[in-house]
Amino acid sequence: MTNSSEPADWQVDEPRQLLETPIGTITAGRLFHRIRQKERTFYRLEAPDWVNIIARTPSAEIVLIRQFRYGSRQVEVEIPGGAVDPGETPEAAGTRELLEETGFAGDPPLMLGWVKPNPALQNNRCYTVLIDQARQVTPPAFDEMEDISSFLIHEAEIFKAVATQPITHGLVLNALHWFRLWREENSSRS
Amino acid sequence: MTNSSEPADWQVDEPRQLLETPIGTITAGRLFHRIRQKERTFYRLEAPDWVNIIARTPSAEIVLIRQFRYGSRQVEVEIPGGAVDPGETPEAAGTRELLEETGFAGDPPLMLGWVKPNPALQNNRCYTVLIDQARQVTPPAFDEMEDISSFLIHEAEIFKAVATQPITHGLVLNALHWFRLWREENSSRS
Repeated sequence: MTNSSEPADWQVDEPRQLLETPIGTITAGRLFHRIRQKERTFYRLEAPDWVNIIARTPSAEIVLIRQFRYGSRQVEVEIPGGAVDPGETPEAAGTRELLEETGFAGDPPLMLGWVKPNPALQNNRCYTVLIDQARQVTPPAFDEMEDISSFLIHEAEIFKAVATQPITHGLVLNALHWFRLWREENSSRS
Repeated sequence: MTNSSEPADWQVDEPRQLLETPIGTITAGRLFHRIRQKERTFYRLEAPDWVNIIARTPSAEIVLIRQFRYGSRQVEVEIPGGAVDPGETPEAAGTRELLEETGFAGDPPLMLGWVKPNPALQNNRCYTVLIDQARQVTPPAFDEMEDISSFLIHEAEIFKAVATQPITHGLVLNALHWFRLWREENSSRS
């Protein structure tokens, strides 16, 4: 795998802030191709890292949630997740978001993997952590604009739910990808 | 799977346009929870649908690309892809983007699946199409700000590349997820 397009071909000018939002800052800046002497303005969402949580109960059920999403204008089937706060580790953020959104807690979080949600437009990562032996220990503590219902599905069933599309959120499918790889490496299940 | 949070609880006001960019329009609008009588401004990227292409050669190699991405400020390993133009089908867009970015063409495109890249923030879908029996038929035809190198990796190797992280783009991993499911259903390979 040789690399014929090093970043050295590109000059990235300091971007300017266009819009501050609760989900990040929209910036724009000039990108210049040194060899072609061509330039264009590119846009970027400067967002915090995100984390999704695979929470597995002692009976091997996974915690799923339903919530209304403003982007799709629909109730989505997802796993718990949220933004990593400044100074917080993804593992700590995962533990916190799981508790806030579902009231579940369990073993110390295990990092399964990460993706770049969209390296064309964003600078951040989305991590997946596993919290095993999860049980509901308290009622959820929603933000006033969160209205989340949680339910359980056996881990053997969740991959069917992936194939037949009740789960359509790309980042949740990424999380299940890391979970599948981890199970293949660590489990006696096939 | 009962649904305790119907969209009926939520009133979505008409959003206003904040920013037009080449990758979509940033809008903002009020979201109101009818039962709690709470409201907040939410932001959305109104983007076209996207398509990623699994292009497989007669010797079962997959076409990968490297390109500099403004969001991550790095050269990313991806598969070919792009935006679906107005009036275009995802299949036609996939055929077009594959040819433009790599010069490859092959069998008629087969839809493998789709995800919502981020239903919290965006309204669009990202489709994955398979173009089998792909061969390079012409040089690539880059946009003046595209600088893309393509290379081949055998399909049996690509899932290792997923596990060991040269590919970190979430939407590309989603595409490989659909390709893996399709191979399990359709192939005599294990």
